[in-house]
Amino acid sequence: MRKISIIFFFIALVSFGQKSDKQQLKAIYDAALTQGKGYDWLNYLSNQIGGRLSGSIQAQQAVEYTKTQLDAMGLDQVWLQPVMVPKWVRGAPEFAYIESNPGITNNVPICALGGSVATPVGGLKAGVIEVKSVEELPNLGRAKVEGKIVFFNKPMDPTNINTFESYSGCVDQRYSGAAEAAKYGAVGVIVRSLNLRLDDLPHTGSMSYGDTPVNDRIPAAAISTNGAELLSTTLKLNPGIQFYFRQYCKQFDDVQSYNVIGEIKGTTYPDEVLVVGGHLDSWDLGDGAHDDGAGCVQSMEVLRLLKLAGYRPQRTLRVVLFMNEENGLRGGNAYAAEAKKKNENHVFALESDAGGFTPRGFSFDCSEANFEQIQQWKPLFEPYLIHSFSRGGSGADINPLKNGAMVLAGLRPDSQRYFDHHHAANDTFEHVNKRELELGAAAMASLIYLVDTYGVGTNSSTIKGK
Amino acid sequence: MRKISIIFFFIALVSFGQKSDKQQLKAIYDAALTQGKGYDWLNYLSNQIGGRLSGSIQAQQAVEYTKTQLDAMGLDQVWLQPVMVPKWVRGAPEFAYIESNPGITNNVPICALGGSVATPVGGLKAGVIEVKSVEELPNLGRAKVEGKIVFFNKPMDPTNINTFESYSGCVDQRYSGAAEAAKYGAVGVIVRSLNLRLDDLPHTGSMSYGDTPVNDRIPAAAISTNGAELLSTTLKLNPGIQFYFRQYCKQFDDVQSYNVIGEIKGTTYPDEVLVVGGHLDSWDLGDGAHDDGAGCVQSMEVLRLLKLAGYRPQRTLRVVLFMNEENGLRGGNAYAAEAKKKNENHVFALESDAGGFTPRGFSFDCSEANFEQIQQWKPLFEPYLIHSFSRGGSGADINPLKNGAMVLAGLRPDSQRYFDHHHAANDTFEHVNKRELELGAAAMASLIYLVDTYGVGTNSSTIKGK
Repeated sequence: MRKISIIFFFIALVSFGQKSDKQQLKAIYDAALTQGKGYDWLNYLSNQIGGRLSGSIQAQQAVEYTKTQLDAMGLDQVWLQPVMVPKWVRGAPEFAYIESNPGITNNVPICALGGSVATPVGGLKAGVIEVKSVEELPNLGRAKVEGKIVFFNKPMDPTNINTFESYSGCVDQRYSGAAEAAKYGAVGVIVRSLNLRLDDLPHTGSMSYGDTPVNDRIPAAAISTNGAELLSTTLKLNPGIQFYFRQYCKQFDDVQSYNVIGEIKGTTYPDEVLVVGGHLDSWDLGDGAHDDGAGCVQSMEVLRLLKLAGYRPQRTLRVVLFMNEENGLRGGNAYAAEAKKKNENHVFALESDAGGFTPRGFSFDCSEANFEQIQQWKPLFEPYLIHSFSRGGSGADINPLKNGAMVLAGLRPDSQRYFDHHHAANDTFEHVNKRELELGAAAMASLIYLVDTYGVGTNSSTIKGK
Repeated sequence: MRKISIIFFFIALVSFGQKSDKQQLKAIYDAALTQGKGYDWLNYLSNQIGGRLSGSIQAQQAVEYTKTQLDAMGLDQVWLQPVMVPKWVRGAPEFAYIESNPGITNNVPICALGGSVATPVGGLKAGVIEVKSVEELPNLGRAKVEGKIVFFNKPMDPTNINTFESYSGCVDQRYSGAAEAAKYGAVGVIVRSLNLRLDDLPHTGSMSYGDTPVNDRIPAAAISTNGAELLSTTLKLNPGIQFYFRQYCKQFDDVQSYNVIGEIKGTTYPDEVLVVGGHLDSWDLGDGAHDDGAGCVQSMEVLRLLKLAGYRPQRTLRVVLFMNEENGLRGGNAYAAEAKKKNENHVFALESDAGGFTPRGFSFDCSEANFEQIQQWKPLFEPYLIHSFSRGGSGADINPLKNGAMVLAGLRPDSQRYFDHHHAANDTFEHVNKRELELGAAAMASLIYLVDTYGVGTNSSTIKGK
C-alpha cells in the first residue's frame, strides 16, 4: 500500500511538473545534451544556407527555414514581423597590394567594411599614413592626411581576459575611421582587422559615414592582421610607399525583410512577455555560425527544451530571431517600437550574441535590487560551471526594449576564441562544438525557467506580491 | 621633491619585487598573454616532432628539444633523469570490416589499443557479441562468448558536465576488456572509442592483460563511434554477422628514456620542493598537442613567466616533463622513487594533463585544512575567470609523490572538447588556441606563486610558523 502511494505521489510530481528548481534545471540540461536539435538547425543555417547578410537571398531563406522549424514545434503562435532593411552588397572579391618600390608589390588580404562605398573601378592608389587612433587625426591635420590612405593600426589589447573589452577599445577605428579621415582630406581608409591573433583573414564589420556628404565619402576596407603587420613594417622602412586597393561594394535601396517570432502563451500571466533571441542576419564572408546562428538556434532551443522538460510557462515566452543586427539594427528597433505601440508588458529579455562557446555566465542590465534577486539563483547554476553573474550590457537587439523597469540579459560564453572568427571567412559551422552550443542553450533555458517562475523587474506579477 | 620620492618609491617597489599578490598575478597574466613562448614550443613539439610514444625516436627528440629549451632559460639546473620505458609499436595501419552477409562488407575505422597483441598475420574473423559492460560477461558465460569477438559498446554519458566523469565511467572496457573477455574464450575485443561525439576517428589508449597468460592474450582494438553505431545496428538486424580485423602491433623490450627536469633553487627554503609538470610522451595517432604537449609547455612556461614577472621563488621550483604517462607511468614512478630515496621534501606538485583549453580552476588532493587555506586565494583568481576550486584528483604523474603531508593539484581546463581529440589522429596543434593555452600557464604560475609565498601542507616552512 505504501509502495503504491509513493508511486502515485511520483506520478503526480511528474504530471504536474512539481519539480524542485534543481530537478528542473537537471531536466533541462539532460534534454539539451541528449535530445538537442540546435546543432542540426545550425548545420542547415550554416551549410545549406550560408552567410545571411540583410537583404540577401540567404537572409530570406533563413527567415523561411526558421519559421518552418518554429511552426513544427507546436508553439501557440508563429509569425513574421515585417521590417525594411538596408541592402549592401560586396560584389566581386576585393584586391590590394603594398607597392614598396615602383613595380615591387606584395598582395595583402583585404575586405570592404560593411556600408563602405566602392573605390573607382580601376582601384585607388595613394601614399599611406599610419595612426593608432582616430584621436591622432586632428594633430596630424590636413597637411599630413590630404590625398593619403589613412591606415588605422591599433591592435586589440591581449591582456584583457574578456576579449570583448579589447574589441570595444578598438572598434571606433572601424566604425568611424572613414568619416573622421575624410574630414582631413584622406582618399581611403585601411583598418587593422579586429582579431587578437596574427593570420591572413580580413574581418569585416559595420562602418558609418555619419553626416559626411555623399560626395566626400571615401572607401574603407579591413586588412588581415598579418597584412597590417607587413604594411606597418614596410612603412617604417620607407614612409613613401604606395598602397593600392579596389572594391566594388554598393548600397542599394532598402528591401523588405522580417523578424521571425514564435511564442508560448503564459498560463497565469499571459500579458507579461519574456523574450529570448539572437540575430538571424550575419556577415557574408563566412556562414555566420557563431555570429549569430548559434544565438538563434539556442533561442529556439530554449522553448523546445522547456517543452521537453514538461514545463509550461506562466508568462508568455517569445523567441525572436532579429533581422539586421549587423548593419542597421532595424529588427531590434522595429520589435521594440511595435511592443511600445501595442503597450505590451515586457518584463525580461535575454540575448545570445557572443558565439556558441562554453557558457560562463550572464550579464544583466538591471537595477541593483533586481541583480541581488537574480544572484540568489547562482548556486543553482554552479553544478553546470556557470559562475559569472555580472552587471553590464545585454544584447544589441534587445537593448531598444530597455525601459528602466525590465531586466535585460546577455549570455556570456567563453570569449577566448570569438575574435578568431568574428566577421571573417572562418566563422563557420565546423568551429562550433556541439556540446558547447547545447550547454549555452541549457543555461539560457534554465534562466528563463527561473525568471518565469519567480518574476523579475518591477513589472512582473510575482514581484508585485501576487 | 615629492615627485622624486614617489618615483624612488616606485623604483624600489619594482626592483625588490614588493608587489601585492594582485599585482603579481596581473604581471604573470600580462607576461603570459604578451610574451608567451609556450605556443611556439608546442608548435615545434607537435609539427616538427609529432606523436611521442614512449620508446620512439620522437620521444627521444622531445627529450632533447625540451632539455635544450630549458637550458636556454637560465635555470639553476637542468638534467635528465633516466627511466626505462616500454616500447610498443603499432606497425602498419589496421584494417577492419563488418561482413553483414557472406561477401558483403563495410569497412570500419579501427586502431589497436596500446599494449595489445597483433592479430594473426592474415587477420581474425569471427562472430560478434555486443555488451555494454565488463560485468555482463559472467552472465553470458563461456557458452555465448567462446570463439567470438566481444564488442564493448558502452557510450560515454553525455549528461555529465565534467566529461572526465563520463570517461571514468567507460574506461574499464578499454583497459580490462580483453583480459576479462579472454577468461570466457573470446578471440578478440573491439571497444567503442571513448569519444562523446559521433565521428570516424578511432581513439587508442592503454589496455592491460593483467595476469592473462601470454598464450591466452587476445587482440584488442578501438572502433570509431560511427563504426560502433554501424556495428551495433548491423548486429541487431543480423546477430550472425562476422567481423574481420587485422593489426600488426608489437611489444619490444624496454628501452632507455628520461624525465626532463629543470629547477630554480629556492632563496629561503631551498630544501622544500614545488613541482610543476606534464607528460612528454603521447599516443602515436596525432601529434599529442593537447595530450600532453600543452601541459609540458605550460609547465615550462610557469618558470619562465615567474622570471619575466621578476619573481624569485623562496622554495625550490622544479619543472618535470614526465616520460611514459600513457602506457606505463614509469616516469612518474621513477621520479617519486628517487625523491623518496634522496629524502627530498616535496611540499606541492601541480600537473596539467587535461588539454590546453580555457582554464576553469584546479582540483586539489589534500586535507580539508589545506583546502580551506587554498580557498582563501579564490578571490585573486576571479578576475581571470578561474572559479572552480574542488577537492579531487591531481595528475597521474605526480600521484606517486602522494605522502599525506603534501598538496597535489591538477589544472582543470574546460572539458567539453577534450574527448573529441583525446588519443585520436586529430589531437593536433591546430586544435589548440594560443590564448587558451597561455591562460592555463598563467593560472598555473599564479598558483605556484601563491604556494611559494605562503606555503601549503604540513611540510612547508611558512605553515610551521616560521
